[in-house]
Amino acid sequence: MSIRIGISGYGNLGRGIECAIKQNPDMELAAVFTRRDPSRVQILTEGVPVCRTEDAGEWKDKIDVMILCGGSATDLPKQTPEYARMFNVIDSFDTHAKIPEHYANVDAAAKEAGKIGIISVGWDPGMFSLNRLYANAILPDGKDYTFWGKGVSQGHSDAVRRIEGVKDAKQYTIPVDAALEAVRSGENPDLTTRQKHTRECFVVLEEGADAAKVEEEIKTMPNYFSDYDTTVHFISEEELKRDHSGIPHGGFVLRSGKTGWNGENSHLIEYSLKLDSNPEFTSSVLIAYARAAYRLSQEGQSGCRTVFDIAPAYLSAKSGEELRKTML
Amino acid sequence: MSIRIGISGYGNLGRGIECAIKQNPDMELAAVFTRRDPSRVQILTEGVPVCRTEDAGEWKDKIDVMILCGGSATDLPKQTPEYARMFNVIDSFDTHAKIPEHYANVDAAAKEAGKIGIISVGWDPGMFSLNRLYANAILPDGKDYTFWGKGVSQGHSDAVRRIEGVKDAKQYTIPVDAALEAVRSGENPDLTTRQKHTRECFVVLEEGADAAKVEEEIKTMPNYFSDYDTTVHFISEEELKRDHSGIPHGGFVLRSGKTGWNGENSHLIEYSLKLDSNPEFTSSVLIAYARAAYRLSQEGQSGCRTVFDIAPAYLSAKSGEELRKTML
Repeated sequence: MSIRIGISGYGNLGRGIECAIKQNPDMELAAVFTRRDPSRVQILTEGVPVCRTEDAGEWKDKIDVMILCGGSATDLPKQTPEYARMFNVIDSFDTHAKIPEHYANVDAAAKEAGKIGIISVGWDPGMFSLNRLYANAILPDGKDYTFWGKGVSQGHSDAVRRIEGVKDAKQYTIPVDAALEAVRSGENPDLTTRQKHTRECFVVLEEGADAAKVEEEIKTMPNYFSDYDTTVHFISEEELKRDHSGIPHGGFVLRSGKTGWNGENSHLIEYSLKLDSNPEFTSSVLIAYARAAYRLSQEGQSGCRTVFDIAPAYLSAKSGEELRKTML
Repeated sequence: MSIRIGISGYGNLGRGIECAIKQNPDMELAAVFTRRDPSRVQILTEGVPVCRTEDAGEWKDKIDVMILCGGSATDLPKQTPEYARMFNVIDSFDTHAKIPEHYANVDAAAKEAGKIGIISVGWDPGMFSLNRLYANAILPDGKDYTFWGKGVSQGHSDAVRRIEGVKDAKQYTIPVDAALEAVRSGENPDLTTRQKHTRECFVVLEEGADAAKVEEEIKTMPNYFSDYDTTVHFISEEELKRDHSGIPHGGFVLRSGKTGWNGENSHLIEYSLKLDSNPEFTSSVLIAYARAAYRLSQEGQSGCRTVFDIAPAYLSAKSGEELRKTML
């Protein structure tokens, strides 16, 4: 029998989950839940119902794992604990500073209901976190570096769009090659924010807007841009649509460290991602962990988990025997 | 109380373990076991006894995890199951084809004794295997690539040394840049053995040996060299000692794969290692998994495990709470 997946929230991430299910023969899409009018939501999979969020409770026994595709700012802090009372759940909560609080809330709800909740799954938090942990455990005497990009930052694009005179915008975060190379060379450099990443904005102006003023406002925006070297390009709406409609992302996690009786030998561990579609890759990670959630639940386990708590074999459709034979 | 580690076999790997213990404050070296005359083995740690292998049984209650540093060809297939009857054990068994058999033997012995045995720990098998598994679980529609080097292959160096007229030799395995770039570009190339790696040998000849004959014999050696483009350099004993006494290694694990309703988006996952000392890095991985072995045993678990079966959090000295706060 295949693992019955529910999708709550049908945006880029929800659609990515739907595509990922198609690639995994041990899974099937049971239903999609939306806050919009279900009759107006067209999904890709034939024969699968689109339901109202409020009716999710009726699906308690027909869904093995519910994947929550809402936002981290306001949706998931409420939704994940709420759904964990009815389903095994999994989310991609990515407000790093609030993870301990979110963990505690989901853990309490899931334990009470005898369900599994896996939070903060994706690539950062997610695969990048895993690589930080493995590398730190192996090289205790070392230094961590994380670089993001080249990729689209939704938050920064939104920030630019909020500026008066801006009709639309896309912002790319770009790691600085020289900084990456300094890390790879084993120099263990101390890098400032400005030295690690640059920012590039493609902006469509409203008619009659003052380009110089918009550019100045972007470059001096605190938190978002003032600590970075930022380039601003003004382009037409057509150019934005043609050249910047994708959602690529990626990045690098590196740790350099020393071993030997007197730290005489250096080592570099590097993990990197180059993604055409940030939401589809995140969805693919979520689906692998949904398999783990299902299995942990089948074993009778309950409570909150993160990627740190889950043995890698739980993610694969292959048996332990097959894995040892083909991948070890 | 710290985790008491025993080292069985004091070569490059055993010495690496000893150095790694020094970097991990929650561990201590209890004893080193050797087949040589203990009075002739000088270790680095003060106040720690060097004992005869035959006397290991007397240490049953004084060692939490025994790390087996013997060779995969003849030592470990016997030693790991044998020691698993007395200790929690961990090894770096790396004969990929024989892992299922080794697993079964260690599992039976460890289960009977109520001990934990973790096998095939290091970087390949080990960290490379883990990255293959994670990447395959995330991108089911994709292709795997593993490249090794640049690094010293002990087996190939030994093969060259066995040739008549060769006094000493060192062999480097080198990944071909063009092949790596083709993989990174997302072309999903089919690569032959020759296209993936080249081999470079540094050879010291016996007096009066025929260089041309030795070179020919190396380049045509089946399994080891005949499928590769090999370069042979003849150098003096002094040069070999001065320029080639290190044991560097490393490599790359890549998986490129597609997502989307019609596979329209491509992704690349890449993991790489650049190691000054192959045995010291392997030792550092072993020590992190020794911590896991200890904890699993404390929980009352028994039997054989591989890196696939162990949740990442078990490797770190930090608590789950600390990990979520600092690394997720």
